[in-house]
Amino acid sequence: MNYPNGKKQEYKKVINYANRGMDLESIINETNEYLLEKDIAIIYKKPTPIGIVKVSYENNKEVITRAYFASPSTLDYNGVYKGKYIEFDAKKTESRTSFPLANIHEHQIKHIRNIINHKGIVFLIISMNECYYLLNGPDLISFIDSQTRKSIPYDYIKENAYELEYNYNKGLNYIKYIDVIGGFTNEEA
Amino acid sequence: MNYPNGKKQEYKKVINYANRGMDLESIINETNEYLLEKDIAIIYKKPTPIGIVKVSYENNKEVITRAYFASPSTLDYNGVYKGKYIEFDAKKTESRTSFPLANIHEHQIKHIRNIINHKGIVFLIISMNECYYLLNGPDLISFIDSQTRKSIPYDYIKENAYELEYNYNKGLNYIKYIDVIGGFTNEEA
Repeated sequence: MNYPNGKKQEYKKVINYANRGMDLESIINETNEYLLEKDIAIIYKKPTPIGIVKVSYENNKEVITRAYFASPSTLDYNGVYKGKYIEFDAKKTESRTSFPLANIHEHQIKHIRNIINHKGIVFLIISMNECYYLLNGPDLISFIDSQTRKSIPYDYIKENAYELEYNYNKGLNYIKYIDVIGGFTNEEA
Repeated sequence: MNYPNGKKQEYKKVINYANRGMDLESIINETNEYLLEKDIAIIYKKPTPIGIVKVSYENNKEVITRAYFASPSTLDYNGVYKGKYIEFDAKKTESRTSFPLANIHEHQIKHIRNIINHKGIVFLIISMNECYYLLNGPDLISFIDSQTRKSIPYDYIKENAYELEYNYNKGLNYIKYIDVIGGFTNEEA
């Protein structure tokens, strides 16, 4: 296809706008597919936890006919990178000034502390103010432990989290910062 | 409670018989609860993967009214031990002479290879002939790659897998062998 002067740029712009509407879960899933395809890391979204109430049989096949959504006590994504255990969750907030801690369940906080104690790599990917941030688990916990506020000010996130870049083909570049927080940069892994 | 001579031993015997009837999944789940409680490792069973077809609302609550069981492409259990990624599946066979490879889906085999490449610890716990064995992923793959048989002879399992011990309070001692296969024994982890 040949574009007249300026047209190509306009086309790119359209893609960027489209991406803005793409939900965070889709972006993470596409990122993880890219990482799997390129043999960089194996990260999966855990299946949605449900409580099954009733199973019926139709043409000798099991069909769930009643179930409810259970609340997760762990984070949504986990997997392996360079032998290390990775777990994270993706959270979006519409607030422009702070990230409400109500977004994270109490048992998820406990789980995050636990993963840190067992030397796993655990973090949040936060979508806020049209940007993506990787907030490392220990930075989240130290905020929670150091004060009583119910939300993390945007300034704390900008100062302590890593801003991620989105690429149309590769998704979010969060692996780059796992190299940093996992201590892989000065170590043969 | 006071037991007359010999009675206490008889009571223990009853527990052992009861355990024989306990299914493998319950034993693994209890083991993982013990490991979590004692702060040894964090291992969870992944939720059953399902495909949701229909969700209804009842009293403003979401209820799944139609869904089907999806086949898993990964293994059932994963988590973290000393920072390392752990993943495994539990398989039981009634055959006394060999473990049928049909028990493992083709995409699970591919996933096991992938975890090994990414330096994760991956294995099967096999229940067979009233014993429990931990077959390390690389030993499973080297069997599959070295010949064309559709099942693993019991002799191969006895020679290459680690026989696990079951304890009524602690469950299966599989962590002991993760220390061996994960190379933790001569290393500060």
